[in-house]
Amino acid sequence: MPTAPDAAAYPVDALNRVKRCNDRAAYDHATVHALLDGGMLCHVAWVLDGQPLCTPTFYWRDGHTLYWHGSSASRMLRQLAQGQPACLTVTQLDSLVLARSAYNHSADYRSVMCFGQARLLEDPQAKAQALVAMVERLFPGRDATLRPPTAQEIKATAVIAMDIERASAKLRDAGVVDDEADHALPIWAERLPVHTVLGEPEPCSRLAEGLRRPADLAGWRPGRALEEALREAQPQA
Amino acid sequence: MPTAPDAAAYPVDALNRVKRCNDRAAYDHATVHALLDGGMLCHVAWVLDGQPLCTPTFYWRDGHTLYWHGSSASRMLRQLAQGQPACLTVTQLDSLVLARSAYNHSADYRSVMCFGQARLLEDPQAKAQALVAMVERLFPGRDATLRPPTAQEIKATAVIAMDIERASAKLRDAGVVDDEADHALPIWAERLPVHTVLGEPEPCSRLAEGLRRPADLAGWRPGRALEEALREAQPQA
Repeated sequence: MPTAPDAAAYPVDALNRVKRCNDRAAYDHATVHALLDGGMLCHVAWVLDGQPLCTPTFYWRDGHTLYWHGSSASRMLRQLAQGQPACLTVTQLDSLVLARSAYNHSADYRSVMCFGQARLLEDPQAKAQALVAMVERLFPGRDATLRPPTAQEIKATAVIAMDIERASAKLRDAGVVDDEADHALPIWAERLPVHTVLGEPEPCSRLAEGLRRPADLAGWRPGRALEEALREAQPQA
Repeated sequence: MPTAPDAAAYPVDALNRVKRCNDRAAYDHATVHALLDGGMLCHVAWVLDGQPLCTPTFYWRDGHTLYWHGSSASRMLRQLAQGQPACLTVTQLDSLVLARSAYNHSADYRSVMCFGQARLLEDPQAKAQALVAMVERLFPGRDATLRPPTAQEIKATAVIAMDIERASAKLRDAGVVDDEADHALPIWAERLPVHTVLGEPEPCSRLAEGLRRPADLAGWRPGRALEEALREAQPQA
């Protein structure tokens, strides 16, 4: 996926330049944001006393800033709150690829790595806005229908923000790619797709009488690709 | 998921002890291995000149050792080959949880973090065995049917091994959990399941004449949970 030379893109340097299979690389905002907006689960790499940790968490994007949250007492959030470098990665697995040699076995995937300095959202108004955006990013219109947050809930929650300083996307969508001479061999080869889809919603057993599923949730329907529902819900920024 | 007090488990210390929501934690081999064996995509946190990086990659397990591979020229593999601490995390997203307050919105998930020192597999025999195990972990019986690896392919591939020194699993399977008083509110709440499943296999368009899909691949059938196929394929160690 070559980037058009005039497309707005994140800067590229030694940190984020894709070196292996660099024909799979992209740095433009459109590709990076599309991958981020199709996910909700990321893995964050951070360092504590020289030890790397890889923490899975929910994230959301607003413009060039990524957010994630957690308990105010969380070790990760307390460490990152001090202003630490982090790397947030989102990966979609699209297929397994069975080739005619072990070496050519592969997978189709799309991933994006984002680098920046994490910081704690301390301004009460910015934090309150972020906590609304966290729900709205998934379920537009829902936040205003909820029981409002208590002071204790807001205090117990920490929000981390990270401006994307560098990013790189890497995409493979090639299916089976074998050495030319190997095609003649009597060996089965296939692409085996992988789909992440929504199941049947399970209403809470204690719903107040007469409630119906809000029309706003219509996009969250069984069988739909999670990625598609996420991308549709993402506010345009 | 409390661990039986006599179950064999990974040691617990400040590095891997789950502090937030520690009722969701497990350290026993059975839980950790079951989560590892239900996945194939991990994220590895590693450090380069103080900068954390979060790299998605394929992994496999043999006993208490995790393996991943890449190009011999890969920056990650060259760095980890020197014997560096790493953290390998595998996460399964099981649902989104829509509650009656923003604070109680959540997700059901299962994740496992494994800590150890990465090392390069240098012994040629150990490396050759690992490259067989890499294919066999997914598709038992397949490696022997493939075009054998060339010396150049083996040279171009690096394999990293990491003995699991610490591990922690964290599991949530609770669906909607709201404050008791919130149940009376006229607010919709549900658990929205997420499934990762196999699609219809796409045979290579250049298969040799008369080939049929190997019976060994019968477990990789459309609609099946990826996790189930992976767990069935995993060699018992």
